[in-house]
Amino acid sequence: MNVQRDYEALVQQGLKLDLTRGKPSPRQLDLSEDLLRLPTGHTAADGTDGRNYGNLQGLAETRELFGPLLQVPAAQLVVGGNSSLTLMHDTVVHALLTEVPGAARRWIEAGEITFLCPVPGYDRHFTICERFGIKMVAVPMTADGPDMDVVERLVAADAGVKGMWCVPKYSNPSGIVYSEETVRRLAAMPTAAPDFRIFWDNAYAVHHLSERPAELADILALAEQHGNPDRVFVYGSTSKVTLAGSGISFFGSSPANVAWFLANTAKQSIGPDKINQLRHVEFLRDADGVAAHMRKHAELIAPKFEIVDRVLTKELGGLATWTSPHGGYFISLEVPRAREVVAKAKAAGIALTPAGATHPYGTDPDDRTIRIAPTYPDLAELEQAISGLAVCVRLVAEQG
Amino acid sequence: MNVQRDYEALVQQGLKLDLTRGKPSPRQLDLSEDLLRLPTGHTAADGTDGRNYGNLQGLAETRELFGPLLQVPAAQLVVGGNSSLTLMHDTVVHALLTEVPGAARRWIEAGEITFLCPVPGYDRHFTICERFGIKMVAVPMTADGPDMDVVERLVAADAGVKGMWCVPKYSNPSGIVYSEETVRRLAAMPTAAPDFRIFWDNAYAVHHLSERPAELADILALAEQHGNPDRVFVYGSTSKVTLAGSGISFFGSSPANVAWFLANTAKQSIGPDKINQLRHVEFLRDADGVAAHMRKHAELIAPKFEIVDRVLTKELGGLATWTSPHGGYFISLEVPRAREVVAKAKAAGIALTPAGATHPYGTDPDDRTIRIAPTYPDLAELEQAISGLAVCVRLVAEQG
Repeated sequence: MNVQRDYEALVQQGLKLDLTRGKPSPRQLDLSEDLLRLPTGHTAADGTDGRNYGNLQGLAETRELFGPLLQVPAAQLVVGGNSSLTLMHDTVVHALLTEVPGAARRWIEAGEITFLCPVPGYDRHFTICERFGIKMVAVPMTADGPDMDVVERLVAADAGVKGMWCVPKYSNPSGIVYSEETVRRLAAMPTAAPDFRIFWDNAYAVHHLSERPAELADILALAEQHGNPDRVFVYGSTSKVTLAGSGISFFGSSPANVAWFLANTAKQSIGPDKINQLRHVEFLRDADGVAAHMRKHAELIAPKFEIVDRVLTKELGGLATWTSPHGGYFISLEVPRAREVVAKAKAAGIALTPAGATHPYGTDPDDRTIRIAPTYPDLAELEQAISGLAVCVRLVAEQG
Repeated sequence: MNVQRDYEALVQQGLKLDLTRGKPSPRQLDLSEDLLRLPTGHTAADGTDGRNYGNLQGLAETRELFGPLLQVPAAQLVVGGNSSLTLMHDTVVHALLTEVPGAARRWIEAGEITFLCPVPGYDRHFTICERFGIKMVAVPMTADGPDMDVVERLVAADAGVKGMWCVPKYSNPSGIVYSEETVRRLAAMPTAAPDFRIFWDNAYAVHHLSERPAELADILALAEQHGNPDRVFVYGSTSKVTLAGSGISFFGSSPANVAWFLANTAKQSIGPDKINQLRHVEFLRDADGVAAHMRKHAELIAPKFEIVDRVLTKELGGLATWTSPHGGYFISLEVPRAREVVAKAKAAGIALTPAGATHPYGTDPDDRTIRIAPTYPDLAELEQAISGLAVCVRLVAEQG
């Protein structure tokens, strides 16, 4: 088989396919179209007029519905706007400019500070660090989550290590779920910095692809049990549950951290969009309603994950490795010379996330990881794109 | 007439009335109840799926509708979430942590920085400065806006003066509209700081109470004409047009400032809630639609402003002065020993914004200004509250 000829044929097809971002497909968004006619009323359970100002923490019924799904007590959950990325970014800002509980000083005055970044990871986490000059140190992922021997050593050695990014469930981009042991060690480990924080981006908490949902240990409870109650900031959103641009977001933590967070956001806002909260509660109803809704998403996207796995198995057996996630939005493909593969794919009209984006500073030292986002294209386009990508991998391998 | 006896009778009534915050009344919110059934479609004029991620600057049709109302070219307008306060707070954060165009360094590294605060002013502006340790210098208001002789002297003398808060139209709380001459001088004045910025909170741009809307000079155009194109950050929102908690907000400025703002918000969000933008555009349609909608608000709240004026005239002629705004949400009442008056009112069950809140650090050096927010109570309650307040003013005056 002549790979060069296959690649030329691929280029000839003049494809225009995009596997870059983890966006829901229009059919997934259609599942939540009823939101556009809701809510049917504007009054919250406690009588609050949802249309007016106020209620900085969010309505009780919103917190009661989503708290358990994110393993956060409702009293310790805060409901935000349409983006959990904003909550993460703003938490870093708050910590830079106002001492977090337990901190001797604001992070802006703490000299060089460092965040640990399990790799491969989520580029938008790294971008927040880059913006604020926060040093990033990569930590390798294992099948159980970040390599905890490395993490424990780094946080114990340096009081400048103030934070760590985690996507603990169906991790972006590997799909790995942190094991109970990993979560326990994260909650329990001694840290040199008294103000060390884990940014627990539980973006895919309910985003299962199989009938056997993964279990994630309760890090807030474990941190409290191990005497580190203020260690963890939990984030989540409905962006990939309802409408990607018009959902609601969540911040959860210890009572002290929540008080700190609300004291800061009180300077920033008179309150969140409570009508959108009522809209979501009426639409999703309860945990069963969320689970039923997420099964409809899984029906649409599980076949996409299967196609990627099938095509890669058929075309690249032995030449590459990849993950087969049971949830989330991404597949991590590991190939030799990833940059060249992505460039070849681009030249053939297949847009991939830049190689290196899964690593701090956009640099994958092994030049190995490609993030595949299979949800947006339809099945036929996806199969075409992955087949084309496989040609590029084979081409680069043969030239190497 | 025995004032002491009047006050005792007032306390006996056991009132529970709240004149503290500028909240729309439920009847005003009812005017926008149709928003809860909108939008009828999810596709923007340019084909964008409003449900998905992206479009950081906001939809073109949203910017084209609101740009002219805020005197900002649509290409230079950014649409945000439900709170312009968030946009103001975040602009200060961005300037602290990322150099604004023309700045030699980030404001966090610029030593002591100062904002000018026309007084009486809006307490939430002052709170943002306090949070970040930004020094506030009060500037007296005249009937034409801030005393420009004072402003020009202060900004010319000190490169540490980096900002100035302005509510140029129907100012909070006086209702004053900046004159054309004031706006021109603000746009033209030399400043010691090359990175001086005016925070132009045009919160009441379309919030007229009379049939003769006040005209406000176009500060962005004037600043450009006078060689200071990057001087002004413009803010606005629909919070007091549609639903107070569920509106959309706006940031407008020069192309360079907008690029700087979007480069920062790109790290913070994948895009705004575009469904809420479509909802607002469909509901308000165009400038005529906004004007017609605002006339309905005026029908509800102009009588409240009239009651305040009538009761104060009847009860306090000669004892106090107050403003009679032609728009906006507030009336500024000036009395001797405001703190005592507010305390007496509180003891009689009438909650007022704390005396001093209209000034930086919560301190009104003349102890004179009381902010009256007449929109939320119904007419009968409002008349009761203002009559009671007048008793308190007379009591304190007699005791003085």
